[in-house]
Amino acid sequence: MTLTTSLESVRRNPGQHRVLTGDRPTGPLHLGHYFGTLQNRVHLQDLGVELLLVVADYQVLTDRDVAASPVEHAENLVLDYLAAGIEPARATVFTHSAVPALNQLMLPFLSLVSVAELDRNPTVKDEIAHAGRATVSGLMFTYPVHQAADILFCKADLVPVGQDQVPHLETARLIARRFNERYGPVFPEPAALLSASPLLRGTDGGKMSKSRGNAIPLGADEDHTARLVRAATTDADRRITYDPQHRPGVAGLLQLAALCQDRTPESVADQIGDGGASALKRLVTDAVNEYFRPIRARRRELAADRAHLRQILRDGNARANATAEATLGEVRRAMGTVPAAA
Amino acid sequence: MTLTTSLESVRRNPGQHRVLTGDRPTGPLHLGHYFGTLQNRVHLQDLGVELLLVVADYQVLTDRDVAASPVEHAENLVLDYLAAGIEPARATVFTHSAVPALNQLMLPFLSLVSVAELDRNPTVKDEIAHAGRATVSGLMFTYPVHQAADILFCKADLVPVGQDQVPHLETARLIARRFNERYGPVFPEPAALLSASPLLRGTDGGKMSKSRGNAIPLGADEDHTARLVRAATTDADRRITYDPQHRPGVAGLLQLAALCQDRTPESVADQIGDGGASALKRLVTDAVNEYFRPIRARRRELAADRAHLRQILRDGNARANATAEATLGEVRRAMGTVPAAA
Repeated sequence: MTLTTSLESVRRNPGQHRVLTGDRPTGPLHLGHYFGTLQNRVHLQDLGVELLLVVADYQVLTDRDVAASPVEHAENLVLDYLAAGIEPARATVFTHSAVPALNQLMLPFLSLVSVAELDRNPTVKDEIAHAGRATVSGLMFTYPVHQAADILFCKADLVPVGQDQVPHLETARLIARRFNERYGPVFPEPAALLSASPLLRGTDGGKMSKSRGNAIPLGADEDHTARLVRAATTDADRRITYDPQHRPGVAGLLQLAALCQDRTPESVADQIGDGGASALKRLVTDAVNEYFRPIRARRRELAADRAHLRQILRDGNARANATAEATLGEVRRAMGTVPAAA
Repeated sequence: MTLTTSLESVRRNPGQHRVLTGDRPTGPLHLGHYFGTLQNRVHLQDLGVELLLVVADYQVLTDRDVAASPVEHAENLVLDYLAAGIEPARATVFTHSAVPALNQLMLPFLSLVSVAELDRNPTVKDEIAHAGRATVSGLMFTYPVHQAADILFCKADLVPVGQDQVPHLETARLIARRFNERYGPVFPEPAALLSASPLLRGTDGGKMSKSRGNAIPLGADEDHTARLVRAATTDADRRITYDPQHRPGVAGLLQLAALCQDRTPESVADQIGDGGASALKRLVTDAVNEYFRPIRARRRELAADRAHLRQILRDGNARANATAEATLGEVRRAMGTVPAAA
């Protein structure tokens, strides 16, 4: 298996692929998540690719001392997924902490990597930088190994990542390769499914991110959206042009409108002409509210029934457990820790 | 809970204690294991202490590249346990790799210790020294954390160790304390149950150890025992005296005979007087063969029925899984990763 693959090659044989991806349950998803990954997942699902979405609740422990209400965050992720078009009958949404056989893979996998390899792993370095703390926990240090367990328990062959994240897959590939060499063929070597999605800018012109306070939540209502867009950073130049380098705030708004209206940012700029920031913001607000109207309506409907969200997680967890137990059985037989007949 | 406790204090309330201990499935047990730990475990069991014995098959991966036939080694451990007097109806014998919910505890536990703490852990340092390798695997590095999972999954309050191993318990105590502080009281802080057992010397006068080639296996027959004792290192001094410092080989044989005949090494030496090494060796051979005759007879009988050994492991694994799932349920509720009602 090559290191990376593209959506075009997946389209040729969608039914032969299994994709593992997911999110940390830290809060509601925003438009950056939607246009960056969520839309693409729905597209993969609709192509017929088998999709597994992990709610990475243990990863929340790597950068926070106490996870605030992880189960509520998990249910809210399911809510955002379903609103965006994920269908639980076709995709498996599960919680990492609910699948013991997946987590057990940590132990044999840890035996296949050295401390030196973990030390220089880019994922770990990023995690440490992200957490901005002097103390690195054992969980953060072994992050690439539980990421490998997430990917390999279901034998996913594809993991959607951006170009800069390709090295993050290396440990999972290494573990798959070494396990197969040592104990016999059990795991596919997962490849990165490169995403063509652009970086989505937030209302301050920087990368949209909840922690930067520049995000528009997927579930924001129309008034909330209007307020957030009105408060966006722009400039005094009444002539609207698409110039990401010199006018990041304006460019971000143009990009958002363009994504919602399926056109180029330049054509949006041309339409505004000399209308200035206020005309741009009105157009963006309308474009976002228009595009997300059906998604948000579905979201409101789904949000009223928490028991349903919980049931979807329970069903997904049951499916993930069955898959993990089957894989762990293969791992045990390959390693000789169970009688050959078992 | 204090750091250490003694057998005397356990005797007062045996029914209130739960002991976790075990072995790596690397080969047959020998007389050093028997007099060092196995006899003591049977004693604890017979006192009414709840006993859990882990066949630490994943720990074999920390110091060996490929574990040779781990399942056969595991069954042989059960064989040695039962021969020595462990009763599967009263003690739970289980395989570490067969209990996913136990292994899952690794992840929350890893979040409670820092890489710096693992770096200076004496268990890890010992493991690394024992393996004598430049490369430290992730599994070896996180050894104290899966040891903590072994101890805490069943809420053992006592772990039998020698005086020099007391620091090895520190990580399990730390994890129990930190978990309880952060998420609420779930785990007892385990204490070391100090063993009064002397170091048993092998046939070369050094510590009895399979890897030193100086061990007498528990399951050796009478002729094999005689051959091993005959080949023991002694000296030319016909007067037999108990002098561990200057005559370690002679002292080791005296100690072995004394343990088998429940007397002091000095009285054994007095009995031999000027009889020399050959008389000593005859006495030792007879003493060992006499003491272990019923144990070895039981062992031969049990060895003929591998299906029975396998069934005992299956039953023990089922009990350990039920215990681990109950504890993991408490952990999930405490951490908020499941709905409060679940």
